[in-house]
Amino acid sequence: MRTIDWVDGRIRIIDQTRLPAELCTLDITELDELVRQIRSLAVRGAMALGVAGALGMALAAARAAESGADLDSELAAAADALTGARPTAVNLGWGVRELLLARAGGAGAEQLLSRALAIRDADIAVSRALSERGAELLAGAGTVLTHCNAGALAGVESGSALGVIQRLHADRPLELVYACETRPLLQGSRLTAWELGRLGIPCRVIVDSAAAGLLVGGRVDAVVVGADRIAANGDVANKVGTLAHALAARHAGIPFVVAAPESTIDGSTESGADIPIEIRDEAEVLTAAGRQVAAPGSSGWNPAFDVTPAELVTAIVTEARVIRGRPERAVPLPEDLSELTSAGPAATHS
Amino acid sequence: MRTIDWVDGRIRIIDQTRLPAELCTLDITELDELVRQIRSLAVRGAMALGVAGALGMALAAARAAESGADLDSELAAAADALTGARPTAVNLGWGVRELLLARAGGAGAEQLLSRALAIRDADIAVSRALSERGAELLAGAGTVLTHCNAGALAGVESGSALGVIQRLHADRPLELVYACETRPLLQGSRLTAWELGRLGIPCRVIVDSAAAGLLVGGRVDAVVVGADRIAANGDVANKVGTLAHALAARHAGIPFVVAAPESTIDGSTESGADIPIEIRDEAEVLTAAGRQVAAPGSSGWNPAFDVTPAELVTAIVTEARVIRGRPERAVPLPEDLSELTSAGPAATHS
Repeated sequence: MRTIDWVDGRIRIIDQTRLPAELCTLDITELDELVRQIRSLAVRGAMALGVAGALGMALAAARAAESGADLDSELAAAADALTGARPTAVNLGWGVRELLLARAGGAGAEQLLSRALAIRDADIAVSRALSERGAELLAGAGTVLTHCNAGALAGVESGSALGVIQRLHADRPLELVYACETRPLLQGSRLTAWELGRLGIPCRVIVDSAAAGLLVGGRVDAVVVGADRIAANGDVANKVGTLAHALAARHAGIPFVVAAPESTIDGSTESGADIPIEIRDEAEVLTAAGRQVAAPGSSGWNPAFDVTPAELVTAIVTEARVIRGRPERAVPLPEDLSELTSAGPAATHS
Repeated sequence: MRTIDWVDGRIRIIDQTRLPAELCTLDITELDELVRQIRSLAVRGAMALGVAGALGMALAAARAAESGADLDSELAAAADALTGARPTAVNLGWGVRELLLARAGGAGAEQLLSRALAIRDADIAVSRALSERGAELLAGAGTVLTHCNAGALAGVESGSALGVIQRLHADRPLELVYACETRPLLQGSRLTAWELGRLGIPCRVIVDSAAAGLLVGGRVDAVVVGADRIAANGDVANKVGTLAHALAARHAGIPFVVAAPESTIDGSTESGADIPIEIRDEAEVLTAAGRQVAAPGSSGWNPAFDVTPAELVTAIVTEARVIRGRPERAVPLPEDLSELTSAGPAATHS
């Protein structure tokens, strides 16, 4: 089952807000509905959002073709709505832009859908390639820690950080994965623990703030996380809480590895200071499991991401390379995606 | 209203597990019941636990006197039960030991109660003195961040870290206090936000993992927390999550201050590595607000504390001094507690 797909002229997603209690899919026929589901995090994760951006544009094009509306103005409106739904997630905008580029090249609704489906297919190959590369880099790690969910539910068929973990475990069984629960929305305890359970990988859920004690206490060999946007200087925006793990990993002297597709690298954003941080509803902080927990009348502050400075990142692993230092610009996808899986030793830029 | 008190031959506590929804008191007549309530965190916080240890011993002595049981064997059993309830909290053991010392000096049940009540009264003076000293140290801070609850609910009438914050605000109104929610049991969003609201101090609740981004982003002037045990070398055990804040404060170059009574300093424990860390039920991590949130079948790992190494602590403020570096041994309480509030400039040990 795919996290996001195109089925019978509709976008089909797994509704992640209902996991792990229920595994339900939603079929989406209108762009507004997709934007709403992106905002509610029914579909989420850097890689899946790239595909959502592309499929959303293809959906808008298909609707315009049916209704006879002006394709370019419909696509412009769709691009605004999609990129505004999660301003920090660069892949969402990347998927949208890829379709705008195809349109600029003269593509009609059908060709736009073909392009979106190619992006969906590339996501699967990209996950596989970066997982292999990351597992090579971290070979020998017995216990790893991850944050949020950068797994199959954050991609089409597999993910980034959890793809690396899955591959590590296939090469040599891991002793343990610590999954940080990831308040406020608990993607770690809901989604990562669910995925690891299905994969048969031993996992313990911890509160996010327990990570530092485990890392500094020498109980973890490596931290591996995904990314929502990587600036030209190598600063990494990822789910709030990532920075604290990077600081603790540095103090502990263990690797802090970011696994992300090239499309996450935003060469037009110079540094982390230029990355817009999405501020979400304070209600997410003031409640837990749908119940008010904070004292009545409390206010909350709810940044969804934080920025880990490049100097705290041991390496960024993509489908194309291992980056130490400035990534500068993303490397274009090879024409033949099969190159990704047969890639030789990782190029190391320092 | 006092967090813990002796009323009509019983121990009366505010049941903190029911805050902020309900403000209820419990009257406790049996030691077993007190131990249960300490374990459930109905009464909690370093300073309040010191008083609970002393009053618990007085209660055991009173029951022994009524039943004609052997006072010394009853006190020995009570001491074991009380100190085993929260192994990391040194104040609990301190309160128990103070009563054992009084017994060794020949005290009967009535004198033991007098000693326990003196410890209760000293707690109030100690809070006031360390709050003044801490506010002097942090004078000029506009925005501070705290973790867990080291407030009135963690002492008899006022607290440590929140006592400092209250005093800072009285001297010059604070712009904002960030209260970390403190998963898993949310003492920050439930108790600290409740106390700050009653005090009229502006407060925003954040998820624990958002602290690093705010600190490193320059949005906070100082971090102030309490402590559950301070080793002879200055390592500080406090609620899980404290270490991450200390690492972020160090990276941000802002003060990380620990406010705690002298009784928290455990000269018999050489370093943080020797402090036993209480591991609590995994169910606390796998649930939120009483509901299962983690994927079915998940396991959790739930350390209640972590250890912040002395080199990350800017200063420890007690009722008697400001400590920079090794505290070595606690300073005995002065005979005349009024000395505490009229103390001159803080002695600085470096």
